[in-house]
Amino acid sequence: MNTAEVHPIGIVRSPHQPRGDAPRQGRLIPGAEMDIEIREEYQDGIGDLADVSHLFVLLWFDRANRNTLIAHPPWMEGSRPVFATRSPDRPNPIGLDIGKIVSVTGRTIRVAGLDALDKTPVLDIKPYAPSIDAILDATEPFRILP
Amino acid sequence: MNTAEVHPIGIVRSPHQPRGDAPRQGRLIPGAEMDIEIREEYQDGIGDLADVSHLFVLLWFDRANRNTLIAHPPWMEGSRPVFATRSPDRPNPIGLDIGKIVSVTGRTIRVAGLDALDKTPVLDIKPYAPSIDAILDATEPFRILP
Repeated sequence: MNTAEVHPIGIVRSPHQPRGDAPRQGRLIPGAEMDIEIREEYQDGIGDLADVSHLFVLLWFDRANRNTLIAHPPWMEGSRPVFATRSPDRPNPIGLDIGKIVSVTGRTIRVAGLDALDKTPVLDIKPYAPSIDAILDATEPFRILP
Repeated sequence: MNTAEVHPIGIVRSPHQPRGDAPRQGRLIPGAEMDIEIREEYQDGIGDLADVSHLFVLLWFDRANRNTLIAHPPWMEGSRPVFATRSPDRPNPIGLDIGKIVSVTGRTIRVAGLDALDKTPVLDIKPYAPSIDAILDATEPFRILP
């Protein structure tokens, strides 16, 4: 497989507008809320998410630079190989955020904790499962975050 | 944005061969190890990952059924909307696994805890950061896992 196509299942409706305005990690700003608006043709895939508290949200950074292997995070001097960072500028610019579900109304999912810009395409959402996703013995990488 | 292209940055070298042979969640089988082989042209993006203990690994399930919004997990009766599951059969079949780094040798990353099939394309790897990714107050969704 050398190439594959992805199609957005929805879009983010966020108060964060231009590049540079998004907080580095949304979850660090308690209370920040935004909407994930699922496209009508995918609505049957949502349900009510009644037993899900948090979602992985896979975003597509359509304004990213895909032709870089070295990241220059603004919050550190120097550079770092891109796969050792969470930089949006990467070969496949898929963003990974975790949002806490606030409400589900039709095909609009309101979440807290995302750091996405307005109109960012959404590729997928998946339920977060602490039994497999909360890795308590993971070490904090050096300066992938501000 | 209606469509975008993804290109694998590497491939999984796994002992799990045919569909049906992969454990449901690799992390539940301690000690299972496999290799992520990064393509030569992306090698400069890895570095030594010296300060990273765990990686998110984004996979492309190239054998998935993308035309379904209702999942029928084999471990439960009935069905469930696909975005409330981790089923590989989904509109954008991007798998999300977490692997513990065992070793990094050149462009081969040995990890424990993945449940991927042999030759599964890898779209991205990202360092896991417990400060933002370990959600301790998340609730366990009902039966997304066996």
